[in-house]
Amino acid sequence: MKIFNITKPDDAIRGKIIRKIDNLTKPKGALGRLEEIALQVAMIRQTTSPVLRNPHNIIFAADHGIADEGVSLSPKEVTWQQTLHFLKGGGGVNFLCRQHGFTLKVVDAGVDYDFPAGSGIIDRKVRKGTANFRYGPAMTRAELKQCIEHGAAVVRDSFNEGCNIISFGEMGIGNTSPSSVWMSYFTGIPLENCVGAGSGLDSEGVRRKYSILKKAMKNYSGDRSLLDIVSYFGGFEMVMAIGGMLEAAELKMVILVDGFIMTNCILVASMLYPQVLDYAIFAHQGDEAGHRQLLEYMNVKPLLSLGLRLGEGTGAICAYPVVDSAVRMINEMDSFQETNVTKYF
Amino acid sequence: MKIFNITKPDDAIRGKIIRKIDNLTKPKGALGRLEEIALQVAMIRQTTSPVLRNPHNIIFAADHGIADEGVSLSPKEVTWQQTLHFLKGGGGVNFLCRQHGFTLKVVDAGVDYDFPAGSGIIDRKVRKGTANFRYGPAMTRAELKQCIEHGAAVVRDSFNEGCNIISFGEMGIGNTSPSSVWMSYFTGIPLENCVGAGSGLDSEGVRRKYSILKKAMKNYSGDRSLLDIVSYFGGFEMVMAIGGMLEAAELKMVILVDGFIMTNCILVASMLYPQVLDYAIFAHQGDEAGHRQLLEYMNVKPLLSLGLRLGEGTGAICAYPVVDSAVRMINEMDSFQETNVTKYF
Repeated sequence: MKIFNITKPDDAIRGKIIRKIDNLTKPKGALGRLEEIALQVAMIRQTTSPVLRNPHNIIFAADHGIADEGVSLSPKEVTWQQTLHFLKGGGGVNFLCRQHGFTLKVVDAGVDYDFPAGSGIIDRKVRKGTANFRYGPAMTRAELKQCIEHGAAVVRDSFNEGCNIISFGEMGIGNTSPSSVWMSYFTGIPLENCVGAGSGLDSEGVRRKYSILKKAMKNYSGDRSLLDIVSYFGGFEMVMAIGGMLEAAELKMVILVDGFIMTNCILVASMLYPQVLDYAIFAHQGDEAGHRQLLEYMNVKPLLSLGLRLGEGTGAICAYPVVDSAVRMINEMDSFQETNVTKYF
Repeated sequence: MKIFNITKPDDAIRGKIIRKIDNLTKPKGALGRLEEIALQVAMIRQTTSPVLRNPHNIIFAADHGIADEGVSLSPKEVTWQQTLHFLKGGGGVNFLCRQHGFTLKVVDAGVDYDFPAGSGIIDRKVRKGTANFRYGPAMTRAELKQCIEHGAAVVRDSFNEGCNIISFGEMGIGNTSPSSVWMSYFTGIPLENCVGAGSGLDSEGVRRKYSILKKAMKNYSGDRSLLDIVSYFGGFEMVMAIGGMLEAAELKMVILVDGFIMTNCILVASMLYPQVLDYAIFAHQGDEAGHRQLLEYMNVKPLLSLGLRLGEGTGAICAYPVVDSAVRMINEMDSFQETNVTKYF
């Protein structure tokens, strides 16, 4: 598989950044998480005056064989319908991209649909949807490698367009199911705590989904290695996001982590390359059951908790202004030295 | 005292707004708090297509006699120094105002300093700081009335300039002390749970502050009526904010509620006119001890929790993009009727 060269941000500059933040005209720590985020972004960018440029949101879209088992309230055609809808500009992610100046890229990672020419979609289709993991592997190992490479290539394009802060979203009816299975395998948290309502199942629907996933896990006879579980249960869009996150970290971009599904992706990314987490800002704790527990397991505290459960990168983009505030703070606030304010701590 | 004519938003339009939100292309409720805020703003503005115009942040600044007791880590001169600093553009509130397009107004409600001509401050000075409430009333009843009127007048000016969403901040060394006393009297929560570190007291400093406030409360021999407690302990900037909030509600403006001090102000405003809460969006839960308990007492859940404890309106302004997102959602997202997406709930 593609090797990524992800290094930790050099610690040499840390003291200088902290001194700058502590000398801004406010009580020490009084800007709370803005100060933490300013430090992280300055470390990633290795400067005391970081600048955010050309934010991109990449949506990877794909279908899931497991959707045939009725694990989602939404019919499978919603994947391609919503994907087209994003390209036309009327979706949830679109108004947020416009509001915060994000370029939206929509990638066909494996949607079961032929998009019309001129739709604007980026064609990285691996196959028209994964196989149903209830009975066998969702994708082959070769397809997994292909996804990692495609995800990395899409991010490298964004980087070459001047982007240094990136969020990832997904569209794929059924994709909370592979996410829940990944989460349970990789954290050891019992499956029932990892399964939620997705796009709106009632409690009976959630029980049914749990029972199907439990059977799929029982039926799984692979070697339980990381990549085997990832490819056996995963979605094309999810593995592309992992490749994208790893490439973004290699390129020292700031990564905004969206909801339940993307948190599972960065969990896997961090099992491959732990340093990826230095580049990740956890943006939003969503309402999908299991997301809070997953974030706690990873020992991270997301910036926002607005009860979103839409995916598409919406939670990540909502947190962008907070990151922007942090960067403006370190660049625009006066220091005590520059003003006549008595240093009051 | 000035009478405000604050009416509840007319419920007739509520069903129409909810139907619009529920028909946007997302699972029902999947945009979480954005949907709640969209409903609230649409109700306030009495339209299914609300628009936010000319956001203003009003900082009321004043000094407090209680500061003579050493209840704050910061020396009293920081009030006028920081107030001038805001006018020059280098403070915490300034980069946030620039980021989110807020007009900043800084009001001298009673600072112990003569601001130079041309500083840009709005002169509503009642007196050069309140009296020390350790030994007697901070302000007279006539001064309280004057503050309410001044606050209302400042907001009416903003309204006349086209503003329909407004936040309030404060600058006043010592003002967590009157806030804690108000909170304890008006919620019944013991004083010790209402007292915190302010701009950075250590635990011994907090204990000392508590003991001074406790003595002041013991020494108080007024009639314990709402306005008597407000004027005996309150700050000029705090009472002006109350007047401002009431005027904003009368004018059907959206009110963004900042941190601990402003939450106490809207608590008092709501004891006078409960309908003011229909116009209030609680923006941020700060780090000052007592704020969480006060919000719980009021049964409100703030949008953000970023650990800010700076005042100035910073927490309120940080939440503006979320409110803006909510408004964009209801205006810009397609409905299922307008698209070819299968309605999936």
